[in-house]
Amino acid sequence: MDFEAVARRLELEQLYADYVHCLDADELERWPDFFTEDCFYRITSAEDYQAGLPLGLIYATSRDMLKDRVSALREANIYEPQRYRHLVSSIKIVGEVAEVLDVVANFLVVRTMQDGEMMIFGAGCYVDQVKRDGESWKFARKIVVLDSRQIDTLLAIPL
Amino acid sequence: MDFEAVARRLELEQLYADYVHCLDADELERWPDFFTEDCFYRITSAEDYQAGLPLGLIYATSRDMLKDRVSALREANIYEPQRYRHLVSSIKIVGEVAEVLDVVANFLVVRTMQDGEMMIFGAGCYVDQVKRDGESWKFARKIVVLDSRQIDTLLAIPL
Amino acid sequence: MDFEAVARRLELEQLYADYVHCLDADELERWPDFFTEDCFYRITSAEDYQAGLPLGLIYATSRDMLKDRVSALREANIYEPQRYRHLVSSIKIVGEVAEVLDVVANFLVVRTMQDGEMMIFGAGCYVDQVKRDGESWKFARKIVVLDSRQIDTLLAIPL
Repeated sequence: MDFEAVARRLELEQLYADYVHCLDADELERWPDFFTEDCFYRITSAEDYQAGLPLGLIYATSRDMLKDRVSALREANIYEPQRYRHLVSSIKIVGEVAEVLDVVANFLVVRTMQDGEMMIFGAGCYVDQVKRDGESWKFARKIVVLDSRQIDTLLAIPL
Repeated sequence: MDFEAVARRLELEQLYADYVHCLDADELERWPDFFTEDCFYRITSAEDYQAGLPLGLIYATSRDMLKDRVSALREANIYEPQRYRHLVSSIKIVGEVAEVLDVVANFLVVRTMQDGEMMIFGAGCYVDQVKRDGESWKFARKIVVLDSRQIDTLLAIPL
Repeated sequence: MDFEAVARRLELEQLYADYVHCLDADELERWPDFFTEDCFYRITSAEDYQAGLPLGLIYATSRDMLKDRVSALREANIYEPQRYRHLVSSIKIVGEVAEVLDVVANFLVVRTMQDGEMMIFGAGCYVDQVKRDGESWKFARKIVVLDSRQIDTLLAIPL
């Protein structure tokens, strides 16, 4: 492992840390900035993903669609006092061509309701592609593969 | 990212790993050593934290107060056969002046009772400040911000 | 921390990430390859571990025994549609002699049933020894210490 590989790996971990803190702080307006303009974003289940089904709880093929998604969530204005907390581990580079990396990572999202009840909201795997963007990296593709087929939510939120 | 930044980042991850293993091994007598003498330590809820309320399940303004806390916990001598397991991820440096770093990180604590029942004990975010101390780092400030307002415990334990 | 220490640390994180993705993808046939030929593998409870009891849900003293274990699991052919998701954090080198490292790490395994129900399947600590094997590392010893005495499973699976 040379220094370039070391630095790239830590930059990658930084990207996932930044992404997670953006979501958990409910700063959704910043969320689309983690993606390239022509990005692909999808939330799906492991079952559908393995069967090759193109369905998704959220399906977007550009950063603008992600912005629309955030606007829709804000306008829906559903009073959802719960908090979400992401844990991400085992980030792994599975492919690499030039400055484009295929990356997988495990995640767990815990939801805390206003009455204090905590539950596992979702667990699964990110199947991502990241591209260098100056000093940092952006997601060219992010597929959120949930282990569960169903998710307990009224409006699908970014994961 | 230069080598100094890389090394600092890994030293930081080491600090959090050491901290977590100290707690999970119930080696609480070593716990105050992770802090500076004039440290600030607080466990609070996200709700109180965001409202700027100074309350806390634990509130300490020096390492000596942390030692007193441990003594009190040991003297209370409540038979608590449960085990705690911390998962920490997404450690992020959010500010940096000289050798003083502002750091946030997500955590999840799982509690296992003696009968084998496991539950999410707490989830949230550390809002910390660390200072260089020779070869390693110490916490000058650690605010444990719990997503839940309440925590199921008789005596507040270090998190 | 010199560059060698940095590279070793990241290689170690890579090892745990690879290990976890192998298990979560149910690619158990590749699992024994993470171990040395004369490895020691054991799944036990914290209670038995601390009491020095040699019992284990799984107990193996060679890579061949791990292969037999996988064969037995595949032949049992129990229809288990659940998915497992590992979160690993706080990887810590606790000892180091030449190219042999003693390592501990925390883990959490979430199980998702086919009906979508998610539960904490197990939490605990890896107590491992890894040895350099060319460019990567292998487990010479892996003790999976579960916080709980019991685990809800028909056939003990690799953790």
